[in-house]
Amino acid sequence: MSGHATNLRLKLPAICFLLQLFTIILFAVFVRYDQETSARLWHEELSHHNKSNRDNDFYFRYPSFQDVHTMIFIGFGFLMTFLKRYGFGSVAFNFLIAAFAIQWSTLIQGFFHSFHDGKIHIGIESMINADFCSGAVLISFGAVLGKTSPIQLLLMALFEVTLFGINEYILLSAKDAGDSMTIHTFGAYFGLMVSRVLYRPQLDKSRQREGSVYHSDLFAMIGTIYLWLFWPSFNSAITAHGDDQQRTVMNTYFSLAASTLATFAMSALINGEGKLDMVHIQNAALAGGVMVGTSGEMMLTPFGAMIAGFLAGLVSTLGFKFLTVTWVLRKVYRVHTHRGQV
Amino acid sequence: MSGHATNLRLKLPAICFLLQLFTIILFAVFVRYDQETSARLWHEELSHHNKSNRDNDFYFRYPSFQDVHTMIFIGFGFLMTFLKRYGFGSVAFNFLIAAFAIQWSTLIQGFFHSFHDGKIHIGIESMINADFCSGAVLISFGAVLGKTSPIQLLLMALFEVTLFGINEYILLSAKDAGDSMTIHTFGAYFGLMVSRVLYRPQLDKSRQREGSVYHSDLFAMIGTIYLWLFWPSFNSAITAHGDDQQRTVMNTYFSLAASTLATFAMSALINGEGKLDMVHIQNAALAGGVMVGTSGEMMLTPFGAMIAGFLAGLVSTLGFKFLTVTWVLRKVYRVHTHRGQV
Amino acid sequence: MSGHATNLRLKLPAICFLLQLFTIILFAVFVRYDQETSARLWHEELSHHNKSNRDNDFYFRYPSFQDVHTMIFIGFGFLMTFLKRYGFGSVAFNFLIAAFAIQWSTLIQGFFHSFHDGKIHIGIESMINADFCSGAVLISFGAVLGKTSPIQLLLMALFEVTLFGINEYILLSAKDAGDSMTIHTFGAYFGLMVSRVLYRPQLDKSRQREGSVYHSDLFAMIGTIYLWLFWPSFNSAITAHGDDQQRTVMNTYFSLAASTLATFAMSALINGEGKLDMVHIQNAALAGGVMVGTSGEMMLTPFGAMIAGFLAGLVSTLGFKFLTVTWVLRKVYRVHTHRGQV
Repeated sequence: MSGHATNLRLKLPAICFLLQLFTIILFAVFVRYDQETSARLWHEELSHHNKSNRDNDFYFRYPSFQDVHTMIFIGFGFLMTFLKRYGFGSVAFNFLIAAFAIQWSTLIQGFFHSFHDGKIHIGIESMINADFCSGAVLISFGAVLGKTSPIQLLLMALFEVTLFGINEYILLSAKDAGDSMTIHTFGAYFGLMVSRVLYRPQLDKSRQREGSVYHSDLFAMIGTIYLWLFWPSFNSAITAHGDDQQRTVMNTYFSLAASTLATFAMSALINGEGKLDMVHIQNAALAGGVMVGTSGEMMLTPFGAMIAGFLAGLVSTLGFKFLTVTWVLRKVYRVHTHRGQV
Repeated sequence: MSGHATNLRLKLPAICFLLQLFTIILFAVFVRYDQETSARLWHEELSHHNKSNRDNDFYFRYPSFQDVHTMIFIGFGFLMTFLKRYGFGSVAFNFLIAAFAIQWSTLIQGFFHSFHDGKIHIGIESMINADFCSGAVLISFGAVLGKTSPIQLLLMALFEVTLFGINEYILLSAKDAGDSMTIHTFGAYFGLMVSRVLYRPQLDKSRQREGSVYHSDLFAMIGTIYLWLFWPSFNSAITAHGDDQQRTVMNTYFSLAASTLATFAMSALINGEGKLDMVHIQNAALAGGVMVGTSGEMMLTPFGAMIAGFLAGLVSTLGFKFLTVTWVLRKVYRVHTHRGQV
Repeated sequence: MSGHATNLRLKLPAICFLLQLFTIILFAVFVRYDQETSARLWHEELSHHNKSNRDNDFYFRYPSFQDVHTMIFIGFGFLMTFLKRYGFGSVAFNFLIAAFAIQWSTLIQGFFHSFHDGKIHIGIESMINADFCSGAVLISFGAVLGKTSPIQLLLMALFEVTLFGINEYILLSAKDAGDSMTIHTFGAYFGLMVSRVLYRPQLDKSRQREGSVYHSDLFAMIGTIYLWLFWPSFNSAITAHGDDQQRTVMNTYFSLAASTLATFAMSALINGEGKLDMVHIQNAALAGGVMVGTSGEMMLTPFGAMIAGFLAGLVSTLGFKFLTVTWVLRKVYRVHTHRGQV
């Protein structure tokens, strides 16, 4: 289509330049290094608070950050390649949208959460949060794959990141402050859930895909397995240092393992032909990790995490609508629990 | 085959549910957080032993754990995709089996190695050991790829993980205790070796594969290179903190590099057509790393590690039987050495 | 071709064995563990300097090292697979050459930078530098892909690694010592640039590639995205501990994001058909990261890094010759700046 081509040729550069220049200007006005990335502020920390360089948050969070980063750009990028027609586009547009979303969400989340003295202060934790927010956008991207131009996708990212930030802010205000972490994570998963509902119909079409999908399925497995592998890092990336971070990793690890067995079982049970369905297996990559996303740092016990993952695997394979309901229930439950704690 | 389909449709869900529920019950009864993952115990550590959160073992081991985790699910998962017919199945069944094996081996290894006060206490180190044990199972899986149903594979994992645990326990009892690490590692490699012997005949058939294998070989290279890349993490993941961990990484790094050159040389020499054989190159991913697996933390010297890797590359390409023999000799030698030390 | 086959069959093993044995001998004579990998020296450090095991450089650098290692073997290995004819060869020869180059550059860089008491002392930092140097060789490899035998490639690696070491040494001597880091990094990027000039003509042929390139492009995206993902680790792997390492990561992160938008925009603008060009997108993986490579640890400010990345993306897509010019200008500028500082 030459119309589409002209569109891309002129409008895509225009929107890219506009968004990037706008973002650069806002960064110039508002964004500054935080106390762990600013040479002056960190050296003040070192001398006044008896710290050493190894106390820099970088060493507690950077490995987790790189795992999350891999989930966003490899995991989500390749997850959709099983829709054979959109293989290369899926990865390339994922790349473009995520590269914009991490910049824009640094601004939006910064305004709501780390804005003081008229500036946004950023460091490794804001980078992780920016990647989280991109993840929510990328799942929505799955819902509209093949139906929208990259221009619409960029505008969707602009809108959704902003909404995500406002949503988080409202949830946070409802609480008496304190550990914003739970709410942050909840916000991330809320975004995931909302978009999964939209996303479902598209995925179900995968059964009608024509022809051989051999290699496409293998590429999609790269995405799936990276999401599964690094979900413990996703859940633990911004939890408190020490036992919390290790416990979150462990709970997610066992939840995912149990969710995988449940998913394979349900997939074989449901499919008439007795074959495993790629889409079901991809659920295993999400359900178990999502399920312990807001509670991963709690003293769930390993078997509690396994039960949670097992149920998540069952339910998500049976149908996502049911999971959405349990999700809303858990949300209500958790807000109450937290209010009780404060 | 509709028989096979029915089998999968009913028996696979049954065995998955059974194994998962059985595992969850055993976890509920026996498995507890260790002192680094339990909020109460870790805070006791912090206050009584003048520790800080950065002393949590998580920060010493988590990056290595994620590398090992990638080896198990991406490395082994894609290693077998060069057998073109089993590409997707290779990755998917690898996923299922490993997800079960990490749970089951947490139990088995826990009973033998960290059982006190009637409970198994787990943390990042048990997760690494569980992944190691899964690795042994996954190599055996290679031997039977395409000949067995996922049900048989799950039962094989159940059996092999149990045997692996007993094997380790016996080897450990033969020693006067102390650093169980060497024996642990030895156990892992013993499992690797035993199964490689079985695994060989199947691999050799790869030359008779029909048709184009272009993309299949590229997928297999993803698996191979991840195994090679992260082998230093595999060997160092549970060695002592500090110089030991760094030295093990360095020895493995040089051993693998030398083993790669030796493998390419031998592969070109052996092949009548002067072409490189994928299966030989995959050996390079294993031989050099395996060779320094039990001795990596010793003061091998870098050139010592290179000689070890170089010989391993030569020998493993020439034929695996020979390597098996040297392996048994090294086993005897090492047990003696250790007894001498104690 | 049987001539080519004989060549490979006899000469490749000969050159591999020769290079490997020569390297092992030089390692045996000259290479020793440094104070962080030697059991004796590290335990002296521990007792005399009030250090603990967590001060071992391993815990500051190993995660970054593994990211760099992944860039070298997966990133560069798969970058070239989009040249469909050379897919498997691209990955396999990349593997062979890099495995040799990391050994040889440990020797060459060791002679120039860590030679004292007649020995080269190595640890995690020398491993990172060895991987950096291999990166330069692998980019040159791209220039000659499909035109040279593995034997010529190994000799090219031998020569280029040596030249790279001499080049760094000369640049370093021109300075009054102090932080060699900048020059090291500059050396690495100089190598990258030189070879990119050669490399360009080959890449431009990609447009004339025949037939379907669907899967080849997806494999190439694996390489591209891993380079992009881990460039923050590449730039920060050997910067000073603490704020410097975190700031370098953050500057590179934002530079890459801005460079990606600029690249997509320019690619759509330039292409007659309004289609995205794979080769352009691959530039995004390099330009933004390279641009802040020598300045990443400075107080660039996040928006400064974004401007740098944005310009790099524009310029590298427009044509590499122009970038080469700005590069030379920056080189002159930086040498002056540094001289001014000293």
